[in-house]
Amino acid sequence: MSTHKYTIGVDFGTESGRAVLVDVTNGQEIAAAIHPYANGVIDEKLPDSDVQLEPDWALQDPNDYLEVFKQAIPAVLKQSGGEAEDVIGLGIDFTACTMLPTKADGTPLCFLPEWRNNPHAWIKLWKHHAAQPEANNLNEIARELGYTFLDRYGGKISSEWFFPKAWQILDEAPEVYEAADRLIEAADWVVWQLTGQEKRNSCTAGYKAMWSKREGFPPNEFFKALDPRMENIVDQKMSRDIYTLGDKAGGLSVQAAGWTGLKPETAVAVANVDAHVAVPSATVTEAGRMVIIMGTSNCHMVMGEEEAVVPGMCGYVDEGIVPGLFGYEAGQSCVGDHFAWFTDNCVSAAYEREAEKRGLSIHELLEEKASALKPGQSGLIALDWWNGNRSVLVDVDLSGVLLGTTLATKAEEIYRALIEATAYGTRKIIETFDAHGVPVNEIVATGGLPDRNKLLMQIYADVSGRPIHTVGTTQGGALGSAMHGAVAAGKAAGGYETIQEASKHMARLGFAKYEPIPQNKAIYDKLYAEYNTLHDYFGRGANDVMKRLKALKKSVKSQI
Amino acid sequence: MSTHKYTIGVDFGTESGRAVLVDVTNGQEIAAAIHPYANGVIDEKLPDSDVQLEPDWALQDPNDYLEVFKQAIPAVLKQSGGEAEDVIGLGIDFTACTMLPTKADGTPLCFLPEWRNNPHAWIKLWKHHAAQPEANNLNEIARELGYTFLDRYGGKISSEWFFPKAWQILDEAPEVYEAADRLIEAADWVVWQLTGQEKRNSCTAGYKAMWSKREGFPPNEFFKALDPRMENIVDQKMSRDIYTLGDKAGGLSVQAAGWTGLKPETAVAVANVDAHVAVPSATVTEAGRMVIIMGTSNCHMVMGEEEAVVPGMCGYVDEGIVPGLFGYEAGQSCVGDHFAWFTDNCVSAAYEREAEKRGLSIHELLEEKASALKPGQSGLIALDWWNGNRSVLVDVDLSGVLLGTTLATKAEEIYRALIEATAYGTRKIIETFDAHGVPVNEIVATGGLPDRNKLLMQIYADVSGRPIHTVGTTQGGALGSAMHGAVAAGKAAGGYETIQEASKHMARLGFAKYEPIPQNKAIYDKLYAEYNTLHDYFGRGANDVMKRLKALKKSVKSQI
Repeated sequence: MSTHKYTIGVDFGTESGRAVLVDVTNGQEIAAAIHPYANGVIDEKLPDSDVQLEPDWALQDPNDYLEVFKQAIPAVLKQSGGEAEDVIGLGIDFTACTMLPTKADGTPLCFLPEWRNNPHAWIKLWKHHAAQPEANNLNEIARELGYTFLDRYGGKISSEWFFPKAWQILDEAPEVYEAADRLIEAADWVVWQLTGQEKRNSCTAGYKAMWSKREGFPPNEFFKALDPRMENIVDQKMSRDIYTLGDKAGGLSVQAAGWTGLKPETAVAVANVDAHVAVPSATVTEAGRMVIIMGTSNCHMVMGEEEAVVPGMCGYVDEGIVPGLFGYEAGQSCVGDHFAWFTDNCVSAAYEREAEKRGLSIHELLEEKASALKPGQSGLIALDWWNGNRSVLVDVDLSGVLLGTTLATKAEEIYRALIEATAYGTRKIIETFDAHGVPVNEIVATGGLPDRNKLLMQIYADVSGRPIHTVGTTQGGALGSAMHGAVAAGKAAGGYETIQEASKHMARLGFAKYEPIPQNKAIYDKLYAEYNTLHDYFGRGANDVMKRLKALKKSVKSQI
Repeated sequence: MSTHKYTIGVDFGTESGRAVLVDVTNGQEIAAAIHPYANGVIDEKLPDSDVQLEPDWALQDPNDYLEVFKQAIPAVLKQSGGEAEDVIGLGIDFTACTMLPTKADGTPLCFLPEWRNNPHAWIKLWKHHAAQPEANNLNEIARELGYTFLDRYGGKISSEWFFPKAWQILDEAPEVYEAADRLIEAADWVVWQLTGQEKRNSCTAGYKAMWSKREGFPPNEFFKALDPRMENIVDQKMSRDIYTLGDKAGGLSVQAAGWTGLKPETAVAVANVDAHVAVPSATVTEAGRMVIIMGTSNCHMVMGEEEAVVPGMCGYVDEGIVPGLFGYEAGQSCVGDHFAWFTDNCVSAAYEREAEKRGLSIHELLEEKASALKPGQSGLIALDWWNGNRSVLVDVDLSGVLLGTTLATKAEEIYRALIEATAYGTRKIIETFDAHGVPVNEIVATGGLPDRNKLLMQIYADVSGRPIHTVGTTQGGALGSAMHGAVAAGKAAGGYETIQEASKHMARLGFAKYEPIPQNKAIYDKLYAEYNTLHDYFGRGANDVMKRLKALKKSVKSQI
């Protein structure tokens, strides 16, 4: 290990944290270790207590994150057989918005006996959805008062984001809000624990906390309009100092060096979001190439040189992904989830037996059967709104449609139609970007799906009419973090000056590449035109049947 | 058996014939016997031969029908322990249009060695669908030449009906057409075999052969326009003497008495269609009460005192069901088939295991789970066009829609939505009748579904807003035929003068009756309004996506 230098990326997911030790020279992943969170997702009752949680709650335990440092980093060091002094930097990425209240010294309130039994003292995980009333109020007030920052987020702030969560604490547990000297993203909190420095990153601030490089946070009057007690939330409990991705947050503290086995003063980068950090690790550090993280849902990220307001996008942040460029994000709320729903609910016992007999998963069997079909052969078309529409229309009250069924319709035809529907949804997003000044010329796919479902990849290429590359890593988050660690370490220490430089050396594309097949593309152009007509008919007010059905469902359920 | 008199009804189905011996006094079904057709549905190759059939062909063997007389009638006589002299009449009903070519003496061409290997010499079963080109041409020519008889059939003649089938023989086997002295419904042919009398009935003539009481058959010029060789088809190969239902066709011949064990000269009624004969056996011989035969498809029959043109109905025939009234018929092409498709293709292995464990059929399990849901609770709505739309829109190129799906959608919710969709389709038919001068005040349900699926019956009552009665027999066809046998026998012989009188004594309603539940009706009114909007949007040209998808599917398949 003497001539090469290494960095470590730590990727904090929903159920576990993962450390990967990477060769700075060539991006080779030398060692990896996963440490599952002891308390996982806390959604029923608080640990070691009888305090029950309401539905829609999802909490975590900050100690579980520290354990990742204490277990997974020593594990990769040991696996690699390397020396701590050859590790020049450390980067982390995190789910977001995942936030917590702490004391001024960074101690989480939930570590303190007097707050331990209060759910609001714990970490609110990204998928904590109980702040919906606060999100609704925030959106309404912002619109009424004419604030324009909503434009940067497709017109709407999600209940998953920072201020709805903070406001819920104030609403429901003002004593916790009062006791919290700091309200902070877990991403920034773990960097603080490593370095002793509270340094907040531009990615979570921009995408989750309504911050922009040019305008900063919304003004105090806005927060006052939400609740007078929140007027000074930014100055009192947050910070207006926001750091660029790749910046060095500080050096590893002696205490954290003890936890990890790394050398004190090892460079630690400011934190990042798990999705966004996967962009440079997918080789993308310039405008025009979209990265799609494909998994249970799809997250689309692309950069542009100009500021553009793209209808219905999740958000855009200046320098939110890579310094010097605007980072645009869009999403489809239901992709892998679609297929999982289908196989869980709608695949016959006969197919299950066939899959078992042939040693295939049900997904593999369906993929095989669906691959034998040509585009257009099933006569089916679907709208991919099983979980609402997160982009372009931004409407959670929309629901799914399957059209064209006959008595001869087979499960694999429906399965393929659902894949196609998500591809049409992605094309819709791409074309909306393109039409509003953010060109998309090529796609790089990462996440769990690309390696598992070749049919899906080909369909995405055919439908979008763009070549789709895969990436040369299965650790897009951790590798991206390790790359940021190399930038934080800097050239003198054996790292890089910029993320572009790091990406050039450390990131690579995968072998698999999918080119649009012209005759498929021609058929999908026709089908996409049908999708578009249905998309607008059901999604833009011509027939609000989905909303009426949902309202009726709600009213019926309320009477049961 | 001395004081009571009996009649026998013989119901010829698709796979078998069934004889039922009925007490004329009270309609009690004393004995029943089924005889399966040895050659069943002939759709691959001709019996005892290597002659292969094209797809869409479906033939039968006339000898199989004679065997029903020879086996099933003696069986019911024996079962009942009665005497042949107490059986005063015989009626038959049949699938239709099921037709065959014969010699002048009634000998089927397929009985003759020189024709036995020609598929066109055999019986074309109702579901023989290979005459579609002839049906298309017939419809086009009739429209071009301005014939109005199409109006009586919803604007279109089906490929299942008499003249397309006859024309197919001429097109593809002119030598068979030439050799056929008679072209005749199997219904009328079996009566001919029993009595020696070729007497054709008004029901098959009216519903399947474009005959009307007022106008007779279309004029010879019309048939000449189809094909000059067909100009005189009616006079040469058919008959203009059409007999009213309940008329006596003749007395049983000595030969047929020998086959059946009945007395020679026993009254035999003119034949009937299996669906239509079930109307009086469902107690309905007057206007205003609709009979729905619910099975794989739904057949709706209602009578009216006035002639009315109802858009998109299958057909109406003066005296087509009961003398003195117009008989209207409509249909939904996919009802039980819908649910069967769903359970075959879309029900998970987990549900199959649960059903097996609990000793339920998968339909029973789904019915149980779906029954626990309230109207509107699933948020789903469907269009019941998995097999096209046979009534109101009359468009086979329409296909199914399922709308409102989410990641929480369960199989039983889809199952219930499919039932509801067929109920909306029935309501649409009822309201179309109502709006065009054929009132429907009450429904009587018969066929296979009503006893098997109480949930379905309640949903139909709630959706249609009309009470639904069931019938007091599981042998609606055979009982109706036995009733016609009693009318053919006449009062003097111990029967009845009219079908009304026979119905009063011999038919009865079942115990089960379903009343609309007002709060369900109120919700279904809302859902039906949504159905209507989607029905018209997809069915009346606003968005012909279904047709375009079907055309695309066809073009893709043609290139494989």
